[in-house]
Amino acid sequence: MTQGIKIVTIGGGSSYTPELVEGFIKRYHELPVRELWLVDIEAGKEKLEIVGSLAKRMIEKAGLPIDVHLTLDRRAALKDADYVTTQFRVGLLDARAKDERIPLSHGVLGQETNGPGGLFKGLRTIPVILDIVKDMKELCPDAWLINFTNPAGMVTEAVLRYTDHKKIVGLCNVPIGIEMGVAKLLNVDHSRIRIDFAGLNHMVFGLDVYLDGVSVKDKVINLLSNPENSSFVKNIKGQGWEPEFIRALNVLTCPYHMYYYKKDEMLQKELKNFKDGTTRAEVVQKLEAELFELYKDPNLAIKPPQLEERGGAYYSDAAVRLISSIYNDKRDIQPVNTINNGAIASIPYKSAVEVSCVITKEGPKPIINGDLPVAVRGLVQQIKSFERVAAEAAVTGNYDTALLAMVINPLVPSDKVGKAILDEMLEAHKEYLPKFFQKVEA
Amino acid sequence: MTQGIKIVTIGGGSSYTPELVEGFIKRYHELPVRELWLVDIEAGKEKLEIVGSLAKRMIEKAGLPIDVHLTLDRRAALKDADYVTTQFRVGLLDARAKDERIPLSHGVLGQETNGPGGLFKGLRTIPVILDIVKDMKELCPDAWLINFTNPAGMVTEAVLRYTDHKKIVGLCNVPIGIEMGVAKLLNVDHSRIRIDFAGLNHMVFGLDVYLDGVSVKDKVINLLSNPENSSFVKNIKGQGWEPEFIRALNVLTCPYHMYYYKKDEMLQKELKNFKDGTTRAEVVQKLEAELFELYKDPNLAIKPPQLEERGGAYYSDAAVRLISSIYNDKRDIQPVNTINNGAIASIPYKSAVEVSCVITKEGPKPIINGDLPVAVRGLVQQIKSFERVAAEAAVTGNYDTALLAMVINPLVPSDKVGKAILDEMLEAHKEYLPKFFQKVEA
Amino acid sequence: MTQGIKIVTIGGGSSYTPELVEGFIKRYHELPVRELWLVDIEAGKEKLEIVGSLAKRMIEKAGLPIDVHLTLDRRAALKDADYVTTQFRVGLLDARAKDERIPLSHGVLGQETNGPGGLFKGLRTIPVILDIVKDMKELCPDAWLINFTNPAGMVTEAVLRYTDHKKIVGLCNVPIGIEMGVAKLLNVDHSRIRIDFAGLNHMVFGLDVYLDGVSVKDKVINLLSNPENSSFVKNIKGQGWEPEFIRALNVLTCPYHMYYYKKDEMLQKELKNFKDGTTRAEVVQKLEAELFELYKDPNLAIKPPQLEERGGAYYSDAAVRLISSIYNDKRDIQPVNTINNGAIASIPYKSAVEVSCVITKEGPKPIINGDLPVAVRGLVQQIKSFERVAAEAAVTGNYDTALLAMVINPLVPSDKVGKAILDEMLEAHKEYLPKFFQKVEA
Amino acid sequence: MTQGIKIVTIGGGSSYTPELVEGFIKRYHELPVRELWLVDIEAGKEKLEIVGSLAKRMIEKAGLPIDVHLTLDRRAALKDADYVTTQFRVGLLDARAKDERIPLSHGVLGQETNGPGGLFKGLRTIPVILDIVKDMKELCPDAWLINFTNPAGMVTEAVLRYTDHKKIVGLCNVPIGIEMGVAKLLNVDHSRIRIDFAGLNHMVFGLDVYLDGVSVKDKVINLLSNPENSSFVKNIKGQGWEPEFIRALNVLTCPYHMYYYKKDEMLQKELKNFKDGTTRAEVVQKLEAELFELYKDPNLAIKPPQLEERGGAYYSDAAVRLISSIYNDKRDIQPVNTINNGAIASIPYKSAVEVSCVITKEGPKPIINGDLPVAVRGLVQQIKSFERVAAEAAVTGNYDTALLAMVINPLVPSDKVGKAILDEMLEAHKEYLPKFFQKVEA
Repeated sequence: MTQGIKIVTIGGGSSYTPELVEGFIKRYHELPVRELWLVDIEAGKEKLEIVGSLAKRMIEKAGLPIDVHLTLDRRAALKDADYVTTQFRVGLLDARAKDERIPLSHGVLGQETNGPGGLFKGLRTIPVILDIVKDMKELCPDAWLINFTNPAGMVTEAVLRYTDHKKIVGLCNVPIGIEMGVAKLLNVDHSRIRIDFAGLNHMVFGLDVYLDGVSVKDKVINLLSNPENSSFVKNIKGQGWEPEFIRALNVLTCPYHMYYYKKDEMLQKELKNFKDGTTRAEVVQKLEAELFELYKDPNLAIKPPQLEERGGAYYSDAAVRLISSIYNDKRDIQPVNTINNGAIASIPYKSAVEVSCVITKEGPKPIINGDLPVAVRGLVQQIKSFERVAAEAAVTGNYDTALLAMVINPLVPSDKVGKAILDEMLEAHKEYLPKFFQKVEA
Repeated sequence: MTQGIKIVTIGGGSSYTPELVEGFIKRYHELPVRELWLVDIEAGKEKLEIVGSLAKRMIEKAGLPIDVHLTLDRRAALKDADYVTTQFRVGLLDARAKDERIPLSHGVLGQETNGPGGLFKGLRTIPVILDIVKDMKELCPDAWLINFTNPAGMVTEAVLRYTDHKKIVGLCNVPIGIEMGVAKLLNVDHSRIRIDFAGLNHMVFGLDVYLDGVSVKDKVINLLSNPENSSFVKNIKGQGWEPEFIRALNVLTCPYHMYYYKKDEMLQKELKNFKDGTTRAEVVQKLEAELFELYKDPNLAIKPPQLEERGGAYYSDAAVRLISSIYNDKRDIQPVNTINNGAIASIPYKSAVEVSCVITKEGPKPIINGDLPVAVRGLVQQIKSFERVAAEAAVTGNYDTALLAMVINPLVPSDKVGKAILDEMLEAHKEYLPKFFQKVEA
Repeated sequence: MTQGIKIVTIGGGSSYTPELVEGFIKRYHELPVRELWLVDIEAGKEKLEIVGSLAKRMIEKAGLPIDVHLTLDRRAALKDADYVTTQFRVGLLDARAKDERIPLSHGVLGQETNGPGGLFKGLRTIPVILDIVKDMKELCPDAWLINFTNPAGMVTEAVLRYTDHKKIVGLCNVPIGIEMGVAKLLNVDHSRIRIDFAGLNHMVFGLDVYLDGVSVKDKVINLLSNPENSSFVKNIKGQGWEPEFIRALNVLTCPYHMYYYKKDEMLQKELKNFKDGTTRAEVVQKLEAELFELYKDPNLAIKPPQLEERGGAYYSDAAVRLISSIYNDKRDIQPVNTINNGAIASIPYKSAVEVSCVITKEGPKPIINGDLPVAVRGLVQQIKSFERVAAEAAVTGNYDTALLAMVINPLVPSDKVGKAILDEMLEAHKEYLPKFFQKVEA
Repeated sequence: MTQGIKIVTIGGGSSYTPELVEGFIKRYHELPVRELWLVDIEAGKEKLEIVGSLAKRMIEKAGLPIDVHLTLDRRAALKDADYVTTQFRVGLLDARAKDERIPLSHGVLGQETNGPGGLFKGLRTIPVILDIVKDMKELCPDAWLINFTNPAGMVTEAVLRYTDHKKIVGLCNVPIGIEMGVAKLLNVDHSRIRIDFAGLNHMVFGLDVYLDGVSVKDKVINLLSNPENSSFVKNIKGQGWEPEFIRALNVLTCPYHMYYYKKDEMLQKELKNFKDGTTRAEVVQKLEAELFELYKDPNLAIKPPQLEERGGAYYSDAAVRLISSIYNDKRDIQPVNTINNGAIASIPYKSAVEVSCVITKEGPKPIINGDLPVAVRGLVQQIKSFERVAAEAAVTGNYDTALLAMVINPLVPSDKVGKAILDEMLEAHKEYLPKFFQKVEA
């Protein structure tokens, strides 16, 4: 490590990469990256070249001695890596569109982390992640795996349950987004806000909120009971909570809670998008096409501002901040997905949770917060049950287990509907689910 | 107790009473009841007299020295009681009709233990039960309270959380019904079957099934994956489970699981009943009217067979069997609602659970079964969260808490819909919810 | 099983065997044993023949069709067994004498389940038990293993932790002895007493005591605070507890608690025995010699009353009662050593505990009792830690782990003294500790 | 708080005060103390004046605008305090001498936190602390109570269990001492070492040790197995651990572990001191007398180096560092005594633990570490049981409870010896145990 840091980004051809590169540039003074390896697969080669060229131009413009490598050879890239980040998407945005559209065609809500879409993104992604971990054990056993690939909670759960690689962190920009949103609500600088986060990925709660170390939860809850203020993250524009509900809940919610506490309204909105061809995947496909057009411009040498529309706000900040805190043993507090070990009382010790952690050189250490409020403990447990059964299905390729995961998901209305969706989605994603089809064919 | 046992039945005018009386007659040889006090309120006076007269005729015919007392004076009845059973219905069947019809008018499923209806039955019933317990502490502190009043799980939770009376058992005929159903499926006598039950009231699972002490769970699950065999309890005729689903779930379900794992189909059925005026309350109202016509017949001196249509099959068996087992220190195994104390790992120690217990003179002692399967842990936790928040709302009369209970119920699709239902139901049941309206008026 | 039951008793040449045979004779009407195989090793051949002949005479006299087989071929015996009981002693009473005398020579207390002696009996016994279980998996996988061999708690822990054989019960006569003692104290028949037992083997507490189903704990504690009444089991004649201490402890103790709560007095007594050559092993050696003289008498065809001096009172009752309850699915309540699964809150789920269980055909099902009193939780945890580390040492043959087990035992006063005793005892028992010496020699 | 910080030190006349004052002076740039109130009782008036004068000279010399107030009026001092530190000793060093000498006269080991002496220091101190907390609730409800008074674990437990004041931290210099010792062992600067501490006060373990964020536990354990290196804290010069023992234990110990893992050797040493009149209390009495002679010197305006002999090394650092981290929301990691809340799995949620915490403006937040190693879980639980029963005895003044605490302490060899010591110590400390004697006299 004396000669600088080697970063490997799997799914390097992603439209997000310029964010990440910007992050490395901004923090170069504290995080001396020597090599940045952008890895992708054959199908992503063109995008990798476009975004890789932009990355090179950005670094050149910044005048920094970071070598950018573009490769389709994952194993070559992983050799002696220090940090591996993952932001790939098995099946690309086409798969995401199916994840959203097939359930909606059955009247069922969800996206890439919730509902049937979340299940299938997990089924496609987990075997690939486990394969990457297997390579890492061999090629860079001391490297940290920083996973951004959704569903980040389920993926982290799978790595914790089915491998012995301890150096895994699941990362999400939702908690930072909530902190930013609260800072804005209170009209103060982000640095003055700290939130005690606890829960699961995309099912995280803010148990307390501090401004300069003094609890302002009551004030924030009050502000949130004003519908104008209820939406923190750009890509899910929700209506506000019923004031009496959020007051009684008495914790901060994340945008994805609307899938559960505003299921009907979300479903109506999504069904409309489904009809109009404007589901999230479809919107993002358009956005991406536009972004890659921009990226091709040989004069562009910065992250284009349009990328922020993409939904990845604070992404750069979250990823590079985390790596820098580990590298520098900063001991600052960040919400990440890691092994529970008792941080949340009603979640199993070995399960992944999303919780405020102290980030040390040895990795994230969860801060204890006792237990979740009674009112949310059930829903959190239900999503955790879903994640665990889904992870098991991904690893085993067992049809019954996949159906079980589907039916216990709170967005799926019955075993019959669940089975219909399962069968249709298995067929649609066949190519990316070898575990499920090997057997049938064998 | 040397002079025989004093039983007090609150809600004595219920159409179920002849079942109970039959039970006491059948078990008189082991359970020498000396006095049976049937207690009701002014509004139930006429029914009390009808059913009370029948009870007297039944006992006379059986030639047993049991004194039947009919009274509206609950405190007089409770004095020195040995066992108090409760089977009252605050607001009578009219209230039940509202519990079912108002949510359905908003497109929301439920009945008297599930969904908004379950919440409101709890809100009306819990203050009355706590009042009875208060009287018992004064008038018969060593008596057992055997509660049949639904929602039995929520009611038991409330007594455990908000009183220091330990001698409470919540009783339900669902587990016996499942055992009977399994015996029938296997074509063997009921006495040869034993099931390890664990879960909550109307959310109970059979973790294992034994025939003559040997596990036959796999066989039973297999039989259950045949749709023909899936319905155990008369009043909920369900479609069968998807075979792969029940196989993967790998535990026995109870009929109320259909509200969660077949939500859509149940909702369609109920909406049809709603339109036709044939919701359960409406059916039962008709049945009850017919039953009381029968009961009036001065020549009738047995439980009329039509009562079995009422849904209370095995009720007599469950209630009298439990009392007899306590009285005789039988140490047999029965599923009842009692304090968890660690019997189910993921449920709080102090919460009510429905679980197989050894019944001793000191009361039920839960048998340990480790934990519930991962797949069902979430849903069970969610219902427990609902029950706890609902019990708190019943005790405090707090509007926000009631809304919270409503919205976290898995059958309620959003905070907005939940609030609309809450407001309409509070108004509809105003008369029976003094805790909520005292304050508003004060 | 239609042709009757096959029992295998490993360590069949034990002086206890006539007790067991008497038990099978007495319960033959409910437990139709067809074959009784008494197994021993070469070194025990003579005793096996003496005691086996007596067993045959006893059965002949009783006129029962039980075939008694005497064999040194364990595997032949195990084939298709229904119940396997173990009562062997690795190294015989000579080893026990060393277990007691070596620690005492260093001023350290203990016997075959407590202190350094308990550790070494565990180290010698556990590998043999694991070997028996391995044979059982192959030759009689559905048989129950009823283990009497001490230290029964540590042995059960080892089987639960290091094998996947679930059908193991550890049995001890101490709890029955306490029940008998309480019955005598209260001057009532044993059948009217029930005690809620919870704890570990030889570290078990009576959390409550019922006479005809009514708690009489306060009365019993009061009686126990009279020194005359404090000793329940014949082979440990203790002084009484300080009245204020037992009152504050407020649970029933077992005789072995004197090793911890009367350490000094016990040590003084044992040191005297050590000097006089009257340690327990030495007393038992004499007793055994006398017993075997009696057993040789060809006219003896009953269990000689002198056996009761041996310390195994109620042993027959405990062993045969348990087998009969399993065989007949009796669902009665018995205290046995089994997997915790949450029965005691502060003990790990997978650890062995000694706790009141319902005995069903499927085996023992612990009854829940919440948690142990705060005051005893620490000592119980400490003995459990000792048992777990000792079991690990027995399985691995690791010297450091064995030293750790030794030093964390509450009777061992320091790491230095512990090491001296360890070294001396390893040498003394070398022959029976192949795991520890293989490596050194390799 | 805008006008600077108000500190109140109860037991201000302690010989430690110059350390504390030095700490405030050194950190003034980050911790702008405006007022320092030194509070003592009538009996400590002279010492208060001596040490208070020195404090004033020190501050004057440093040229800082801190007002030092000396007072016997605790309530006046507490009014509007920001931080209250406690370092008093009920009964002064005379009481400590009795705490040590009476048990030793019965052959029983201990000092002011362990064994009978620990119990009695707790019995005397807890009522006073609860009284201080009562005053704080009234006069400065938002102030932090930083307790140094031993037994710090038992005192923190009592405040957590018997008051609703959340802002309590128990502080001890042992963990810092271990870190310093490890730094010295490794010959690196203290700032590069971080230890994951978990356990109880004076029963704390280092679960892992990091140098620059990389675990060096194995290396440190190895170094510790060299007897030369085993002693970290000046006032307990121990022999080293047996190398195999510390290797198998595989965690860092604290010096007080010698009371349990080297009981015999410690007892021999203490018995010698007892004879020679050189128990710790007697040594400290002499030291204190010398220190106060030095303090009287009107030319002395710094902390005299001799104070470091007193055993309070790093005390200033620990106390002022903690206050500064809270005040400045530093989010650094420090080991303190606080509510467990799940940080250590096998300790109750509401109990005090000593564990590495992130120190925020909202107070310490424990970092999760899973569970303690099996081998130490028992001893830790036993000390926690002792602390809880002792705290209950202190609050209730119940003789039986006090005896129970005494007998369950692992250093007390029997109920009989425990009772003899209890009776003698109750009499000796009568003046400071009003709870116990009120009743007797009433």
